[in-house]
Amino acid sequence: MNVERFSVLSSQFSVPMITTVAFDADDTLWHNENLYFMTQEKFKRLLMPFQDVATIDRRLYEIEMRNLTFFGYGIKGFTLSMIETAIEVTDGRIGAHEIHQIIDFARDMLRAPVELLPGVRETIASLRETCRLMIVTKGDLFDQESKIARSGIAEYFQHIEIVSEKTPAMYAALMTRYGIHPDRFLMVGNSLKSDILPVIAAGGRAVYIPYHLTWDHEKVTDNEAATDGYVQLSHIGELPGYLRNSIHAAPSSH
Amino acid sequence: MNVERFSVLSSQFSVPMITTVAFDADDTLWHNENLYFMTQEKFKRLLMPFQDVATIDRRLYEIEMRNLTFFGYGIKGFTLSMIETAIEVTDGRIGAHEIHQIIDFARDMLRAPVELLPGVRETIASLRETCRLMIVTKGDLFDQESKIARSGIAEYFQHIEIVSEKTPAMYAALMTRYGIHPDRFLMVGNSLKSDILPVIAAGGRAVYIPYHLTWDHEKVTDNEAATDGYVQLSHIGELPGYLRNSIHAAPSSH
Repeated sequence: MNVERFSVLSSQFSVPMITTVAFDADDTLWHNENLYFMTQEKFKRLLMPFQDVATIDRRLYEIEMRNLTFFGYGIKGFTLSMIETAIEVTDGRIGAHEIHQIIDFARDMLRAPVELLPGVRETIASLRETCRLMIVTKGDLFDQESKIARSGIAEYFQHIEIVSEKTPAMYAALMTRYGIHPDRFLMVGNSLKSDILPVIAAGGRAVYIPYHLTWDHEKVTDNEAATDGYVQLSHIGELPGYLRNSIHAAPSSH
Repeated sequence: MNVERFSVLSSQFSVPMITTVAFDADDTLWHNENLYFMTQEKFKRLLMPFQDVATIDRRLYEIEMRNLTFFGYGIKGFTLSMIETAIEVTDGRIGAHEIHQIIDFARDMLRAPVELLPGVRETIASLRETCRLMIVTKGDLFDQESKIARSGIAEYFQHIEIVSEKTPAMYAALMTRYGIHPDRFLMVGNSLKSDILPVIAAGGRAVYIPYHLTWDHEKVTDNEAATDGYVQLSHIGELPGYLRNSIHAAPSSH
């Protein structure tokens, strides 16, 4: 292969500039899973007089999964699942007072302050100079809108999409709706299952930034995770540098 | 005023053709409030051994209103409010078994069949020949998406918007987003508060088709209702005829 031919190939395979960066919200822009984690700790303390902690954990997860079909994601569905679990693991011995406390947990979660992750504000403020920014988040419409409004960074985003599931078809429809070529669309998120793999499947690009906690339901097997075509960063602050370099180099596999 | 001048005025005030018809969903396209009504009847029967029916009704409504800020609209928030009401009106004497039954009410509501109102399918099928059709509905994202999917008429609508509140600003943003001039946008719905008055305030047009049940929260005073500029029809089947005639005549007040 001579040099001229190589340079043609290289330009053919160079990566087009990213024009739209879409962000997942929970655990990508602000803390969220720690709120569920802390609530689950309170829930277990409430039920410890009745049942061992491992059983409570296991039954809560099973009941949450069964209820997803009916309730979808979000704090209200989680709360109904906690109430069901409490009744079940105590064989109905749980009192009305304790159940009322579980509803209070929900209200506490819904009014908890929205804490941005380190570096988010600066990164978003810098990226908006060169890219169109979006939020693409899954979950309860009311709860997500409330968090976006309270985050103090809503104004940086041109589009905010709250969806019930993040599938390849949903991402494809989104890119069509806003007239974005998949090559020029980058999704940034902390869930391989929701933010990374379906975007790659839809022909888009993805940056994976893990959060220190992952809900079991969002975990993927090593086999599923072994898809090429996305990049892993350890911190959102690395994103502007990655975007500057990625104009000239193909994305490396993780 | 001579005839010529009058004809100029008349053409100035003639109404442009409607190009987009947006429909509310619950109690406009399909039955919904009757599901809440029937569930509330079951709820009252469950609590009758503990408290009089009028007190149950009053406290449920008060607790629902207080919880709207936290939970928003929809079946899951309604269910959490029923559980709180049950605990409160029984002074904590309600048993875990009864609370579990309330959660079962929620699952029954969420999987209840979607029953179209009479004439909806034919009207929608006919209107799509000449207009762009949308659904603009308020409530829980997961629940609304599920109902739209099960309705069997989703394919007739070009856009489906699920929003957390129906305000003039929301309608204005919607028209801007889809590039629709307010004069050419018609909203059809059963709630004066959510579907009619805010659309008129945003410069759009509205057709009010009352449903036989109205949730207290959606009721407006006679004073608020006395806004000109919308039309009341008794049945969705009258809509195509109204649209044909409205091209040449200004909308009459109700």
